[in-house]
Amino acid sequence: MTVVLGKKIRIGILGASGYTGAELVRLLSRHPRAEIVLMTADSHAGEPYDQVFPHLGGLDLPGLVKLDEVEWAGVEVDVVFCGLPHGTTQEIISGLLHTTHHSVIDEVLHEGPGDAAAAIRGAPRVIDLSADFRLDSTATYAEWYGHEHYAPDLQAEAVYGLTETARERLPGARLVACPGCYPTVAILPLAPLLAAGMIAPEDIIIDAKSGITGAGRGAKQANLFSEVSEGIHAYGIGQHRHGPEIEQELSKAFGDDLTVAFTPHLVPMNRGILATSYVRLAGETSVEDLRDCLWERYEQEPFVRVVAEGVAPATRHVRGANHCLIGVFPSRLPDRAIIVSVIDNLVKGASGQAVQNMNVMYNLDERMGLEQEALFP
Amino acid sequence: MTVVLGKKIRIGILGASGYTGAELVRLLSRHPRAEIVLMTADSHAGEPYDQVFPHLGGLDLPGLVKLDEVEWAGVEVDVVFCGLPHGTTQEIISGLLHTTHHSVIDEVLHEGPGDAAAAIRGAPRVIDLSADFRLDSTATYAEWYGHEHYAPDLQAEAVYGLTETARERLPGARLVACPGCYPTVAILPLAPLLAAGMIAPEDIIIDAKSGITGAGRGAKQANLFSEVSEGIHAYGIGQHRHGPEIEQELSKAFGDDLTVAFTPHLVPMNRGILATSYVRLAGETSVEDLRDCLWERYEQEPFVRVVAEGVAPATRHVRGANHCLIGVFPSRLPDRAIIVSVIDNLVKGASGQAVQNMNVMYNLDERMGLEQEALFP
Amino acid sequence: MTVVLGKKIRIGILGASGYTGAELVRLLSRHPRAEIVLMTADSHAGEPYDQVFPHLGGLDLPGLVKLDEVEWAGVEVDVVFCGLPHGTTQEIISGLLHTTHHSVIDEVLHEGPGDAAAAIRGAPRVIDLSADFRLDSTATYAEWYGHEHYAPDLQAEAVYGLTETARERLPGARLVACPGCYPTVAILPLAPLLAAGMIAPEDIIIDAKSGITGAGRGAKQANLFSEVSEGIHAYGIGQHRHGPEIEQELSKAFGDDLTVAFTPHLVPMNRGILATSYVRLAGETSVEDLRDCLWERYEQEPFVRVVAEGVAPATRHVRGANHCLIGVFPSRLPDRAIIVSVIDNLVKGASGQAVQNMNVMYNLDERMGLEQEALFP
Amino acid sequence: MTVVLGKKIRIGILGASGYTGAELVRLLSRHPRAEIVLMTADSHAGEPYDQVFPHLGGLDLPGLVKLDEVEWAGVEVDVVFCGLPHGTTQEIISGLLHTTHHSVIDEVLHEGPGDAAAAIRGAPRVIDLSADFRLDSTATYAEWYGHEHYAPDLQAEAVYGLTETARERLPGARLVACPGCYPTVAILPLAPLLAAGMIAPEDIIIDAKSGITGAGRGAKQANLFSEVSEGIHAYGIGQHRHGPEIEQELSKAFGDDLTVAFTPHLVPMNRGILATSYVRLAGETSVEDLRDCLWERYEQEPFVRVVAEGVAPATRHVRGANHCLIGVFPSRLPDRAIIVSVIDNLVKGASGQAVQNMNVMYNLDERMGLEQEALFP
Repeated sequence: MTVVLGKKIRIGILGASGYTGAELVRLLSRHPRAEIVLMTADSHAGEPYDQVFPHLGGLDLPGLVKLDEVEWAGVEVDVVFCGLPHGTTQEIISGLLHTTHHSVIDEVLHEGPGDAAAAIRGAPRVIDLSADFRLDSTATYAEWYGHEHYAPDLQAEAVYGLTETARERLPGARLVACPGCYPTVAILPLAPLLAAGMIAPEDIIIDAKSGITGAGRGAKQANLFSEVSEGIHAYGIGQHRHGPEIEQELSKAFGDDLTVAFTPHLVPMNRGILATSYVRLAGETSVEDLRDCLWERYEQEPFVRVVAEGVAPATRHVRGANHCLIGVFPSRLPDRAIIVSVIDNLVKGASGQAVQNMNVMYNLDERMGLEQEALFP
Repeated sequence: MTVVLGKKIRIGILGASGYTGAELVRLLSRHPRAEIVLMTADSHAGEPYDQVFPHLGGLDLPGLVKLDEVEWAGVEVDVVFCGLPHGTTQEIISGLLHTTHHSVIDEVLHEGPGDAAAAIRGAPRVIDLSADFRLDSTATYAEWYGHEHYAPDLQAEAVYGLTETARERLPGARLVACPGCYPTVAILPLAPLLAAGMIAPEDIIIDAKSGITGAGRGAKQANLFSEVSEGIHAYGIGQHRHGPEIEQELSKAFGDDLTVAFTPHLVPMNRGILATSYVRLAGETSVEDLRDCLWERYEQEPFVRVVAEGVAPATRHVRGANHCLIGVFPSRLPDRAIIVSVIDNLVKGASGQAVQNMNVMYNLDERMGLEQEALFP
Repeated sequence: MTVVLGKKIRIGILGASGYTGAELVRLLSRHPRAEIVLMTADSHAGEPYDQVFPHLGGLDLPGLVKLDEVEWAGVEVDVVFCGLPHGTTQEIISGLLHTTHHSVIDEVLHEGPGDAAAAIRGAPRVIDLSADFRLDSTATYAEWYGHEHYAPDLQAEAVYGLTETARERLPGARLVACPGCYPTVAILPLAPLLAAGMIAPEDIIIDAKSGITGAGRGAKQANLFSEVSEGIHAYGIGQHRHGPEIEQELSKAFGDDLTVAFTPHLVPMNRGILATSYVRLAGETSVEDLRDCLWERYEQEPFVRVVAEGVAPATRHVRGANHCLIGVFPSRLPDRAIIVSVIDNLVKGASGQAVQNMNVMYNLDERMGLEQEALFP
Repeated sequence: MTVVLGKKIRIGILGASGYTGAELVRLLSRHPRAEIVLMTADSHAGEPYDQVFPHLGGLDLPGLVKLDEVEWAGVEVDVVFCGLPHGTTQEIISGLLHTTHHSVIDEVLHEGPGDAAAAIRGAPRVIDLSADFRLDSTATYAEWYGHEHYAPDLQAEAVYGLTETARERLPGARLVACPGCYPTVAILPLAPLLAAGMIAPEDIIIDAKSGITGAGRGAKQANLFSEVSEGIHAYGIGQHRHGPEIEQELSKAFGDDLTVAFTPHLVPMNRGILATSYVRLAGETSVEDLRDCLWERYEQEPFVRVVAEGVAPATRHVRGANHCLIGVFPSRLPDRAIIVSVIDNLVKGASGQAVQNMNVMYNLDERMGLEQEALFP
């Protein structure tokens, strides 16, 4: 439902020189209702964007500027996508949401849901792709990220933006915290099953395998081609920061606190995460019940697909696309099931979901700008 | 310039289970003026398409049928894309172009260029992706493909579909032979320079490097992951069938017969071809002259881009996109230059160019369905 | 302890054109006590070996012959390594062990353990790399492999050749069934813990990730570079034939029947398997207890290494080497632990372990021919 | 020919934390006459080596120390392998060769060639893997490396260590400059042909393709997995520093100054370089003449192999091995030929050749420590 025909949402992208930034540009540049008007990249300020990302050459984009040098008063931006490193985002967004910038589009688009319009008028809305606002508990945040939260008030306000569960809160949201890539691929299949009481909460094991773009574009020896090609390893075993994020959301779905075993692995591929989740069936639940539950839950969802019995989802089936595929399998262990789910970590696990959230925030067709098929091979 | 607003071109894809078939489906499924109405795949007839290519699950596509079992009389098809193995295509297309199928869209779309309309009315137009109609000389064909040409009359009629050079002949074409992937990446930079007399015709060396999708989806030991990953090798040295095709088109551009050294290599990547061409400057020509010549030639082209001095094109800059990038460099050898050009072999080197040709054939915006950005990483 | 100084063991390799065959040649060609005297490869008979595997060019090897055409009576072979496809091996080995071939080396080497010498004199000893003799129960074999066992008597005799557990039975063995690659990487860490009663037998989850050489050199579409690069998927979920093999050996270690959840995944790399095993601690056992148990068990083993606390083993640490690395980690789930183990599937998971077994069978230094370091990157 | 039976050469490795350093350790740890007694790595001083390179865990190695902190007076080192970054090496080696360290082994080994022994007694001999001493002309050095040479006297003394051409000068050498990886793969096939007057000196084009380990282990964005996988690009076109090095050696072989076109490309693989060289035949020379010339030249060489007509060398045939394979092919251009050569850039292109040089320097069997087969897949 588009209210203002032809009117475009003016987009700012903070941190446009990272992979999620490039992915936002790729998606938004073909989004019929989006217009990128601002892009920051501190270490590349002044460079043409196609020097930073030559694959996006040919687009008509604004120049890269330093974040510090943005004069917010003079920029008309409706939505800011924030792809900055973890830890730096809280103060920046805190500052941003107190600017007096005036977004005309919000006024118009939100004439319907008036309260929301009032709340967000005057400053750009923020869709954050960092981890800074994902954890509801600032204590948990401090424990896992090593410092006190810098903007606890905004944390309380932030909407956890797994689109499929946040859809009602998004239209009125001023600050959306997009989920991590691992949480996205883990929560989508498990949350409905916990909510339905179909799986035991105390015995959830998530073995996840990710491509290397998840580690970002920073120059680290550990991510050199020669270090990660032709091999696989686990990392952050029992200690990865996406663990508490997964637990938070699964606990909400279940209705009580739970803990999970979450083990990430690094796979020599660019894109994609596959999660193999080992669950214990609750009560009389069967494997078919799980599949039916997920099927019903996601039947109407444009980007989540429960595959047929016996089909094993592969990350290459969603490369470049915003889809999550889910397969449900029996285990040789009695009373257990195995769930395989896949996403592209840069799309549904980051920038694609961010755009999906934007679409919902502005009452646009949720699929807008996200309809291209996966690229295979 | 679209004549019939909203009217869709009805598409048949022969050989839909190969990589070029899948790529056609990927591109055409988002093409606003195309509708896929027929897909054949002999070895997969009866299977749902998303079993053959799960990454395209979710599309609303016709079922796969055997080519032999298509009842052409009862099918309304405007254009047939033919992605069958080399050698089998001549007879099939020969039969096809004598059917009495009636394409309404052609009548309407081509009211303008009347002669063309007359020529093509009554049978689907054919865009062939095989090598069967690329060589003008049936003698050359027989020499390189090991048998007499089965449809010499159609060979005479076929338009060699390098869109950038074929644009005037395409609207009236009944049969278009899309160039090979290697010829596309080699001809685009070299033909204008030969036509302008800027490079010597007797001393052209084309060292090309291709991804592995160029070898198709057939089960061959030589293309197993374990055989081709983590290494590079040359193949068909001095004997590859794309050699005479390149020579044919460069000879046309130059105005006289010429021979080239063409060496293909296999690189452990899915998509992309990079050609490094070593040329000798003619007369007083400078390296800058070459760049200027190409720049002027391609300035208005939507899919060919001459990059700035010093920029080295990479295949990953065009992954999934229909672009060809060209860079021109000085050599340490006096009076010589080095030209680097890249394409995605499955897009500009095959299915993308085929769609581009279709757009020109139907007077559509040439970019229709081909506008998505490259996918990187 | 070498009895006959300088005397070489004469080796036959059946199925030398597969990856495990090539790996045997690689290892045995530098083994100071081995001499390859016979190599079969039905589809490549008559070809020089360096045409089949150019990376082994320069070795002085016997010509490839068809298996049917070997005249066993005239060939002096002490040990036959059998790398034939599953299902074909039982009859071939059955025939082989009834030949009247006379192995001089066995007589001499085994003067000490006289009974063994008597048992094996007269026919070559067989080290089988197929799955044909791994399952003790012929009923289980029939269930998982789809046909009755063709040589149940030999099955009863065959020694399951996980060297670390079979060391005492190997010197007298006439037929050794080398473990599968997945079982090797799973059993080595888990068997000692079950034997010590440190982990619960009813709750073992093994999530394994393998490189693609494990699928062999046969021409299959599913293993093409373009099909498996840049992605990961699970396969045979709950149904892989290595599941019952793992269960058999872990049951032996535990002392009673147990079932495991075993999920293999295919990773875009040539070599390596990583297993992430999720176990429940028994009684008062701690994670440190597990590590200590494994440390003690493998301290004297030349090819199994328990890594330090906090170190995550990676497959690239053992590429080309015969080692198994094991790491033990706490889980966020209480009373649970995570064990990560890695091998090179072609070495410790196949040909390397086969050579290790041969060394033990002939009282040679177990490390002979297996001492080269891993190749990284 | 080993003079002192069992006596080991005491080795120091400067820069042991890079890939060439690790490769030296891999090769020398199994070299029967080598003993590693010193290893420096400034950024990893104090760490156990298996933390820096876990794939070499299990070796008994000296601890890593800072280069500055080595007390040369107290260390008994016969040979120093220097794998330090370009530009830093000249001063270090200059200092090193004036120490008063006394190498007993040299005295004994070199009783025969007395003059050499006198020259080198008293300081370790140096085998340098950097580019610092490769260019005979200090003016050329200054032009390409941007600063004056810091040790012009040592430059005059240094032996350019392409083993196959340096064999006579190596036994008396105090300082050996190992060739670059690209020069090695280019010079081996081309130098004999130029020396024989079989190819034209003014028209040599070398199109080279390298794996990514050639770029070293430094943390650079350009070498991240996500930046270089799934694509190919050329770099340093006409400007790579290995160009003048190739020209220097080919000029020596030809007997007069010549210039070449040299274009390196980066291929998504760890190891290997393939050079496709395009040459013009001189006079009446035929392609067969070229092959014969190379065959004769290298027939007795342990590490250079001219492959049979029609066989295309691949980098994976030499992965991990010290071999160079060379194939000669006709071109479609008259009077031209195409030569394909391959090496493993870390072995024959760096550390393997360095060990080969050491073997010659000490009159050992040239193959010692270098005999393992290539690792494939």
